[in-house]
Amino acid sequence: MDWVLFLIFLAACGAAATTGAVFPPGDWYKRLDKPSWTPPDWLFPVAWTLLYLSLAYVGARIATQEGAAYALAFWAMQIAFNTLWTPIFFGLRKIGPALIVIAGLWIAVLGLVWSLWPLDTLAFWLTVPYLIWVSYAAALNADIWRRNRGFVPVAR
Amino acid sequence: MDWVLFLIFLAACGAAATTGAVFPPGDWYKRLDKPSWTPPDWLFPVAWTLLYLSLAYVGARIATQEGAAYALAFWAMQIAFNTLWTPIFFGLRKIGPALIVIAGLWIAVLGLVWSLWPLDTLAFWLTVPYLIWVSYAAALNADIWRRNRGFVPVAR
Repeated sequence: MDWVLFLIFLAACGAAATTGAVFPPGDWYKRLDKPSWTPPDWLFPVAWTLLYLSLAYVGARIATQEGAAYALAFWAMQIAFNTLWTPIFFGLRKIGPALIVIAGLWIAVLGLVWSLWPLDTLAFWLTVPYLIWVSYAAALNADIWRRNRGFVPVAR
Repeated sequence: MDWVLFLIFLAACGAAATTGAVFPPGDWYKRLDKPSWTPPDWLFPVAWTLLYLSLAYVGARIATQEGAAYALAFWAMQIAFNTLWTPIFFGLRKIGPALIVIAGLWIAVLGLVWSLWPLDTLAFWLTVPYLIWVSYAAALNADIWRRNRGFVPVAR
């Protein structure tokens, strides 16, 4: 693997990860009505760290392969939508619009997984957990939206 | 050109463009002390629209080419840093941290332009305006930071 390529893709993930650090959940998230299957807070940074490392590795692995055009386009799309979600959910506290963003992210990740299948088996399996995680996060976003319609966010 | 590829790269640009719509400059930006060479407000959406269309075209154009690994990695990095900048500058109103983000964006765009030079002359020239624009925006961010240190943002 080309380590410089890995580091460039990891830097892209770093931009997405930064949103989690600068727009923390805080009291507002704590007070939202959430389903019983909401993951514990500590799981989010752990899961994202593993997913970002996998994603950077997959990016570096496929970038030099022929026929990876779609996979690389979806890779770029997913990191942009990923970076957008947190500022809208935790920054603006707009749960409905965040649901639209996570739907876009889900399409990008599905596209990534789908285009890796005929290309690279290891890369495919390394992105399947990301699709599962984003599906789960999208369901959580949708259920939080359903439960908290009319909830007036506290003054920021 | 593969139009589906173009639309996937354009969707990635759409995520970055969305930050400009949901985190508008507003009164806070109007009241900041800005240099005389600040571009007029109307120029920003015009410039970004042209840059995003070019970027999506460049992405679709190079994704199917051999030897485009670095260019595509930098393409992904620039769109993530681009999406991160607006929520930090206009959302959190953190001018100093935004300067760090735009430095990262500048490195990604320089890397993109640099890796396109030996690969595709048209794609190279289509990204040069982006490098110039981001250099200008970084200088503006730096000068606004210098002029407004100690400026207390209004309550949000």
